[in-house]
Amino acid sequence: MFVAAVVICQHVVRSSRRWIQEQQYQPWRLRPLKLQPLSPVPSDIEISRAQTPKPISQLAQEIGLLPEELEAYGNTKAKVHLSLLNRLQHQPNGKYVLVAGITPTPLGEGKSTVTIGLVQALSAHLKLNSFACLRQPSQGPTFGVKGGAAGGGYAQVIPMEEFNLHLTGDIHAITAANNLVAAAIDARILHEATQSDRVNNCNHNNIQLLRLLEYTFDLTPEEIRAFVRLDLDPEKVTWQRVVDTNDRFLRKITVGQANTEKGHARQTQFDIAVASEIMAILALTDGLGDMRARLGRMVVGSSRNGQPITADDLGVTGALAVLMKDAIKPTLMQTLEGTPVFVHAGPFANIAHGNSSVLADKLALKLVGEEGYVVTEAGFGADIGMEKFFNIKCRTSGLTPDVVVLVATVRALKMHGGGPNVTAGVPLPKEYINENLQLVADGCSNLKKQIQITHLFGVPVIVALNVFKTDTQAEIDMVCRIAEASGASAAVQCHHWSRGGWGSVELAHAVKKVASQKNHFQFLYNLQDSIVEKIRSIAQKVYGADDIELSPEAQAKIDYYNQQGFSALPICMAKTHLSLSHMPEKKGVPTGFILPIRDIRASIGAGFIYPLVGTMSTMPGLPTRPCFYDIDLDPVTEEIKGLF
Amino acid sequence: MFVAAVVICQHVVRSSRRWIQEQQYQPWRLRPLKLQPLSPVPSDIEISRAQTPKPISQLAQEIGLLPEELEAYGNTKAKVHLSLLNRLQHQPNGKYVLVAGITPTPLGEGKSTVTIGLVQALSAHLKLNSFACLRQPSQGPTFGVKGGAAGGGYAQVIPMEEFNLHLTGDIHAITAANNLVAAAIDARILHEATQSDRVNNCNHNNIQLLRLLEYTFDLTPEEIRAFVRLDLDPEKVTWQRVVDTNDRFLRKITVGQANTEKGHARQTQFDIAVASEIMAILALTDGLGDMRARLGRMVVGSSRNGQPITADDLGVTGALAVLMKDAIKPTLMQTLEGTPVFVHAGPFANIAHGNSSVLADKLALKLVGEEGYVVTEAGFGADIGMEKFFNIKCRTSGLTPDVVVLVATVRALKMHGGGPNVTAGVPLPKEYINENLQLVADGCSNLKKQIQITHLFGVPVIVALNVFKTDTQAEIDMVCRIAEASGASAAVQCHHWSRGGWGSVELAHAVKKVASQKNHFQFLYNLQDSIVEKIRSIAQKVYGADDIELSPEAQAKIDYYNQQGFSALPICMAKTHLSLSHMPEKKGVPTGFILPIRDIRASIGAGFIYPLVGTMSTMPGLPTRPCFYDIDLDPVTEEIKGLF
Repeated sequence: MFVAAVVICQHVVRSSRRWIQEQQYQPWRLRPLKLQPLSPVPSDIEISRAQTPKPISQLAQEIGLLPEELEAYGNTKAKVHLSLLNRLQHQPNGKYVLVAGITPTPLGEGKSTVTIGLVQALSAHLKLNSFACLRQPSQGPTFGVKGGAAGGGYAQVIPMEEFNLHLTGDIHAITAANNLVAAAIDARILHEATQSDRVNNCNHNNIQLLRLLEYTFDLTPEEIRAFVRLDLDPEKVTWQRVVDTNDRFLRKITVGQANTEKGHARQTQFDIAVASEIMAILALTDGLGDMRARLGRMVVGSSRNGQPITADDLGVTGALAVLMKDAIKPTLMQTLEGTPVFVHAGPFANIAHGNSSVLADKLALKLVGEEGYVVTEAGFGADIGMEKFFNIKCRTSGLTPDVVVLVATVRALKMHGGGPNVTAGVPLPKEYINENLQLVADGCSNLKKQIQITHLFGVPVIVALNVFKTDTQAEIDMVCRIAEASGASAAVQCHHWSRGGWGSVELAHAVKKVASQKNHFQFLYNLQDSIVEKIRSIAQKVYGADDIELSPEAQAKIDYYNQQGFSALPICMAKTHLSLSHMPEKKGVPTGFILPIRDIRASIGAGFIYPLVGTMSTMPGLPTRPCFYDIDLDPVTEEIKGLF
Repeated sequence: MFVAAVVICQHVVRSSRRWIQEQQYQPWRLRPLKLQPLSPVPSDIEISRAQTPKPISQLAQEIGLLPEELEAYGNTKAKVHLSLLNRLQHQPNGKYVLVAGITPTPLGEGKSTVTIGLVQALSAHLKLNSFACLRQPSQGPTFGVKGGAAGGGYAQVIPMEEFNLHLTGDIHAITAANNLVAAAIDARILHEATQSDRVNNCNHNNIQLLRLLEYTFDLTPEEIRAFVRLDLDPEKVTWQRVVDTNDRFLRKITVGQANTEKGHARQTQFDIAVASEIMAILALTDGLGDMRARLGRMVVGSSRNGQPITADDLGVTGALAVLMKDAIKPTLMQTLEGTPVFVHAGPFANIAHGNSSVLADKLALKLVGEEGYVVTEAGFGADIGMEKFFNIKCRTSGLTPDVVVLVATVRALKMHGGGPNVTAGVPLPKEYINENLQLVADGCSNLKKQIQITHLFGVPVIVALNVFKTDTQAEIDMVCRIAEASGASAAVQCHHWSRGGWGSVELAHAVKKVASQKNHFQFLYNLQDSIVEKIRSIAQKVYGADDIELSPEAQAKIDYYNQQGFSALPICMAKTHLSLSHMPEKKGVPTGFILPIRDIRASIGAGFIYPLVGTMSTMPGLPTRPCFYDIDLDPVTEEIKGLF
């Protein structure tokens, strides 16, 4: 008895000791992969292929994951169980770093490469635990215009072809779930229109229930009809089908034209898969139960008498949760220098919030521990991606950022300073190749404005100048000087693209210094403000508009959402990323404009209302010369060619 | 010097010894999972969940796979590298067993459960190396009518929810590849219609080539036009989009109705993903190079002057191969008793050949070794699935089967003997519950005919009677007696559903005995026969038709295929599986009918011509009470409910 008690006590002591140990910050025993950058810098896929990734199980072990928390998908990708959050619940979070950007050219200014370069510098060179959290790219553009999205040069996620292709199937799961809802909607409309109340009830509910209603509760046929039918209005279905392909011919289609559908044809459209509300939910959810609840709340249309119809009403919620049960786990990969990366979710930045997942950030913050760093990226310019990161993503997650890294390029600044148009696929005009200090100086207006926007939220900002080989020292120095004069806590040049993490060490030091300072994070608006006030706050304080102007459609939607009790949701502006205003051609810092709100929509499951400023395409097309012309596979070596 | 030579010699000797050892048959050190069947038999998902699968890496090791040949997808699924075929190229193949069936009721007669029960018996009870090769089911019906397809009762693949859901993403990859072709077709038609020859050429080829044509070869504008344009006829596009969802509203649609598509709307349709020609290619290919070549040969439509246009013409072949690079590797799973299963490909049995993949069979035949068994399944009744297995799959693979297991049930035989209709979702009439020897005796006509069909190919046949608990001993004995009298090498009763492998030991012994006998396998027709002769051979010898009758459309297609040089392909009949004839209500052995050929199509990449006998739906619908109503996920335990 006594012996048993001693054994139990010893056991408790050992357990507690282990428990305390587990909670403490421990520097990882990370073995970085050596990098020997070549000059000139080879193509992305050549660089990716020249590096042999660590087995993903080894990386997982190095960063403190238990074997049972890992589900390998081949040797270079693994899903991580959410049970980790439970195991490390007492572990303090690491520092939370957001990478945002100035208003970009259509070519993009390298937020992803800065993100990856920064964690390579932090982990592999400063020996600090750090994690990058990236969005999974849509496969559509990979074969269309854009190419891959795994970073570039010597700041990449490897193997880049795995990152850019199916990955671990999350977008495919979203496609399957989204389209099951769509099939359920049209089938339900057809069945309700062509079958009796009795058949509809027996099928949608059960025969016992019908008898209960008829005989026990003595309901009238009209009451029973109202009970068994959703009475979805085919004209008011808002749910759309999706594919992960750039298929412009699906932008407007008519479905239901076969005889078997008995004349129930209607017009609708396909969106690109990442535009699905289910993707936005994946990015914002904090667990299986919450995801299931959000999926159930998704509004797919309204009934003939104007009531919202949800996925729960269709009886499809459980099946959606089943389809999404693996997608909810973030995917672990690695950078070129063998440091850890989570790839998870990738909501469309046009009509959704364009940020990687809350869950990946939360897991990473626990894994790096108190003195570690999690670097996450927000799509588009800071006026859009960062604003949504703060007002939507941070509000949902409860996390607060420690520092913003604002990415700028001399190229984009010159454009804002009045340089000629920058167009994808066309050689850059000479202003962008040769030194032009005047254009740079003028263009810094945009940089200054984006710094001010960051300060609205009470978060310090570091400007990261992503250096191109055509940039001159005078141009670089000028940008850094103006940035610091405009209130940036630091402004540093970054050479990750040509040198890997070593090229971002200065940025890493700046991040370490600034992130350790206290900040005073605040939201831009209160959820209890009216929808109009919330939109006006963003338009005036962030975009610099004089005011907003609502179309009659937008006003009618606001009235409807108020009536339905959806007014306390945050706002997710659907605005061009090519200007602070709604006019893509207006560069620099446009003033004196009224922001027109053409229409307003809602993603009730994801939990935001999205005003449309102008027309937002939700389905890209293939260009006359698509990327897929160059993509091929060597059947013998199994090597992929032409991805970049 | 001398010492070095001795060392080299020793090394060579050791290598050779190891080499010889590797080539020899070795019984696996398989550790079966214990099964303790309950009575009454619980639901499929309860049985599946009650068994803990072995780690897939352990199973892989037990059956002789090297760690580098395996790509785990979680802990219960793994893809197997095709390099295995090279390593074991000198290993003799095991015995090749095909499971086919008599003409089924709409409920199916249990070919999958017989397949799984048989390998459980062979591996776990007779201790003989054996592998099951199964098709991956479409996810559409899982949420629609049919439920899962992982077998059932105590003869299942586990975890059944993994088998029935995304698996390792192969069908998603097919969907992505199929729809990239579709997007490329419509974008190409639009660009050719709205851009100059110069733009089309610069984009589709390159500017140097255009100058070469203009100045060096002195081509006329008409010649250049012919060179740079595919001139696809929008009315003659045969390629269709796919989704893996039962979405009936996509059976006939109009695409391209947005303004951006400038009036190029056209009518088309979506098929269920498994109906894609790319799925048929996956099932028939023997490696990456062959798959790439087949993908390139796929005909997607024809030009305005009647020439076939291929995926190669669209420039999309390489991208398709890249999208399919992982899908080509079969997925390893296990049965309830811990014996190995390959799941790979699942071409629609209506318009394709409905058989699992050639590659899975080839890998499995090497892994089991000379004295082992590979059991593979053909969809539908033997008149369809088995005929295509022999004439298409075996012709492509070069493999020849050793024995056919023909699955029969008392239920289906009673239906053929004149019993009332059997309908899904409706309780069985009493004839099927109570003993009725007359119906059984009469219905054995179908069994006898299917045995004769097997003998046409020179392969011995064992009848496996899948016993239901309502079957009486007299009924069972009668079937076995008639089967043996009709030429079956053996006829045995199977109780795998209620007892697992133990219930199929008698079948396993019969297979072992019959498979060791020599057989005289032959095809039913020569490829050099005319298309009409080949169709007539199948109609008369297999279906029992008096003759065939070609519609004018069918005749025109034959002329076209002859002219294009496609006439030497095998034939893949698209006929109902519910009757030996084309009339689903004609049970037993219909005679005195003329088989009408409504139309003829071709899958040039997959490599077959498919005559349509009647209308074949390529897109299932959701019923009024779909399966997804019952499917749910417990957010805490992560357990799935309602899959069956």
